[in-house]
Amino acid sequence: MPKPYLVRRGLETILAELAVGDSVPAERELAERFSVSRETVRQALHELLVQGRIARQGRGTVVSSPKLIQPLSRGSYTEGAQRQGRVPGRVALAMGDVTGSDDICEDLEIARGSTVLRIDRLLLADGQKLGLESTFLPLPRFDSFHSTFNPETSLYTAMRALGIEFGPAEERIETALGSPREAKLLETTTAMPMLLMNRRSLDSDGVPIERVRSLYRGDRMAFEVVLRE
Amino acid sequence: MPKPYLVRRGLETILAELAVGDSVPAERELAERFSVSRETVRQALHELLVQGRIARQGRGTVVSSPKLIQPLSRGSYTEGAQRQGRVPGRVALAMGDVTGSDDICEDLEIARGSTVLRIDRLLLADGQKLGLESTFLPLPRFDSFHSTFNPETSLYTAMRALGIEFGPAEERIETALGSPREAKLLETTTAMPMLLMNRRSLDSDGVPIERVRSLYRGDRMAFEVVLRE
Repeated sequence: MPKPYLVRRGLETILAELAVGDSVPAERELAERFSVSRETVRQALHELLVQGRIARQGRGTVVSSPKLIQPLSRGSYTEGAQRQGRVPGRVALAMGDVTGSDDICEDLEIARGSTVLRIDRLLLADGQKLGLESTFLPLPRFDSFHSTFNPETSLYTAMRALGIEFGPAEERIETALGSPREAKLLETTTAMPMLLMNRRSLDSDGVPIERVRSLYRGDRMAFEVVLRE
Repeated sequence: MPKPYLVRRGLETILAELAVGDSVPAERELAERFSVSRETVRQALHELLVQGRIARQGRGTVVSSPKLIQPLSRGSYTEGAQRQGRVPGRVALAMGDVTGSDDICEDLEIARGSTVLRIDRLLLADGQKLGLESTFLPLPRFDSFHSTFNPETSLYTAMRALGIEFGPAEERIETALGSPREAKLLETTTAMPMLLMNRRSLDSDGVPIERVRSLYRGDRMAFEVVLRE
């Protein structure tokens, strides 16, 4: 059997005996135990890191808590995280008017070059940084949010309070790498695969109410969906 | 403005004027044109590569065709690709009986250690390698496939021919890196983020009919879904 495969199997056995937060043996120790090069161990550990099975902590490596598995749904991040028994959190990074790009204006079905309200937030679960979310809202419909909306609370709750009824949401799911700035905000590196979701939500009359770009750490987040006809 | 941002903007302008298959100027030329280090250019080109906007071709770099955007649906890869105007293809890698892992037996609701039929296929679009698919089928239900199923054709068509009516499919979507073997089969590197989909399909009586693990090149594939209540 090829060595990388034996190392992965060996690491699985080690991880199976450890609990979340426990230290993983050091690279050198593992290389000796499996009689392989440190490079082979490093590759296997990197795979486990990207899978979210282990995480760096200070100078060492520990077993991580499982990925947050969110149902793909029109609902908010808060509702999804709570259903998974996690404590959701949001940190406001910025909120203010910007000139919408051509793509965003087209998706929101407003004139090119229109001003939109941009809200940037960091998403947390149990205090851990999980994702970055940029929301673009059409104006003047959401003008009142400038003074009334607290970006550390649920946007969808605030929209419902305005009397908005939600229609369908269109979502595109892909994978991407973060920019150096995004990786830093999420306390990871530009080599970490991310899940990139672009969403456009409509109200019950089919009028666009938001355009959202979310970037999630691939080692901390997964999505689930039940497909019917 | 920070240099990486200026380089990305400059590259966007260059790409906007090129067609699919056109050569992208060399790293050194770009570094001179933007008066930045080659490292800054390399980082920006790597981002575009992962986004599937450009691709390596021989020693050079060319503009790539857009990602295949598949609707998230119970349907087969073939149907999805055809709807997007692409020519789908499948290459059989292996087909035969294996002992199901505990996870797979549990998902298929069969006894631990049961034998299952495993089918490994490479998925193509317009001749380009796009994904790797491993399907696990419960036996004896699909015993006849040993002699009748051609793995280079649609599995769902063959299932329908057996009289199977499809029920819901549960899908989990995450991002991952490929193993060296997987990266090689997909003609990419272990640094390329992949989309990993794990699917379990049920028949109309709620009995599991397949478990599928699909790994797609992140630079060539994206998914779309319309979310309703």
